[in-house]
Amino acid sequence: MSKLRIGLGVDFHQLVPDRDFWLGGVLVPHHKGALGHSDADVLLHAICDAMLGAASLGDIGLHFPDTDQAYKNIDSKILLARCRELIAEKGYSVVNVDASLCLQAPKIKPYVPQMQEVIAQHIGVTTEEVSIKATTTEKLGFVGREEGVVAYATVLLEKQ
Amino acid sequence: MSKLRIGLGVDFHQLVPDRDFWLGGVLVPHHKGALGHSDADVLLHAICDAMLGAASLGDIGLHFPDTDQAYKNIDSKILLARCRELIAEKGYSVVNVDASLCLQAPKIKPYVPQMQEVIAQHIGVTTEEVSIKATTTEKLGFVGREEGVVAYATVLLEKQ
Amino acid sequence: MSKLRIGLGVDFHQLVPDRDFWLGGVLVPHHKGALGHSDADVLLHAICDAMLGAASLGDIGLHFPDTDQAYKNIDSKILLARCRELIAEKGYSVVNVDASLCLQAPKIKPYVPQMQEVIAQHIGVTTEEVSIKATTTEKLGFVGREEGVVAYATVLLEKQ
Repeated sequence: MSKLRIGLGVDFHQLVPDRDFWLGGVLVPHHKGALGHSDADVLLHAICDAMLGAASLGDIGLHFPDTDQAYKNIDSKILLARCRELIAEKGYSVVNVDASLCLQAPKIKPYVPQMQEVIAQHIGVTTEEVSIKATTTEKLGFVGREEGVVAYATVLLEKQ
Repeated sequence: MSKLRIGLGVDFHQLVPDRDFWLGGVLVPHHKGALGHSDADVLLHAICDAMLGAASLGDIGLHFPDTDQAYKNIDSKILLARCRELIAEKGYSVVNVDASLCLQAPKIKPYVPQMQEVIAQHIGVTTEEVSIKATTTEKLGFVGREEGVVAYATVLLEKQ
Repeated sequence: MSKLRIGLGVDFHQLVPDRDFWLGGVLVPHHKGALGHSDADVLLHAICDAMLGAASLGDIGLHFPDTDQAYKNIDSKILLARCRELIAEKGYSVVNVDASLCLQAPKIKPYVPQMQEVIAQHIGVTTEEVSIKATTTEKLGFVGREEGVVAYATVLLEKQ
């Protein structure tokens, strides 16, 4: 039996004025930010969900409910580190993460190396094992109208 | 050469009144249900497509065309079991499945353990190898307006 | 440590009149085509991004910027072949690719075998390692209104 496991996460947040825009653990300067109970970091949430899913540990809503005041405005890096602990308790570690962010603006390229470092550090891999990509939706849909942002993440886990 | 293969499925259905809402092989109480030629189980369809794709067997539309009366209102668990047979004929079995359901309502958490059991039984793995996650789209798009539902599934297959 | 790596790509393009419709390296007869700086082949772009992501090589926008005249109307098969070179330089080759195209029309089934051949040839695998699936969105959203097309691709890479 293979020691590998695959996971896929997807997350959505509205973009609204007067909110900080946290993406991949990095504060990205923008005239809008993502709305949510926590810091609404769509990229970290997708990665958390992919890790939990691959280890069959439920989802982010199960572990960190948005009705729990403990997670109000919480830094999602704390949730990511917790997901790493949860998968480690089941004997898993991350092989690699590949994520895609769908947003119309701003360009996130300048922030990608920092996101890779932050994520790698919190899930216990090197930056080489963390890939962050971005695409617009070519003005299509709620992402194209800059009303929201979507992130997809896939992870490969390995049992020790 | 690796004995592993990766697959990804995505499926969409409209939500309409006066239809049963089948999700992951379980009848979920709700004031709407998914519209489709079969029982319109978006989650099982995404998993079927991921299994077929990983084994390079085409897609669900090829094997179970929605123009074929044989599949009218069919229980998608039958399709899932058939997909398992199809991949087994090529020497593949499922390592794990991780799926994400995007729907605004209802909360599916109470039904997840039953979904895992039903799916595991039909694809020949333990419930530990089947992960079902859910997220809203934070009121965004057709999912947010409760007009439709989307499911993503990823599977890892292994050649015997 | 596993020699395998996972990648996920997603791409979006608008559908407009008076454009050729390139999908998976094949010219598909249709009254609309995908709009873009290159030939706007949404399927090949998603596969390129999945390959780059799995090898932690950035994204398609980094390697082939849509502000660069060198890529104006370029045949995306050239980009796909370049992605294969890029992953090979890091010691990776493709195990398998599974992609899903979300479009309302036309039916692409007749073109799938040719797409598989073209893609397989450009990434150095057999057609058996390339899977192309398609689904409508059941008339939902911008894909359902035939305003756009979306492609998802997942790849498994192996280190030599």
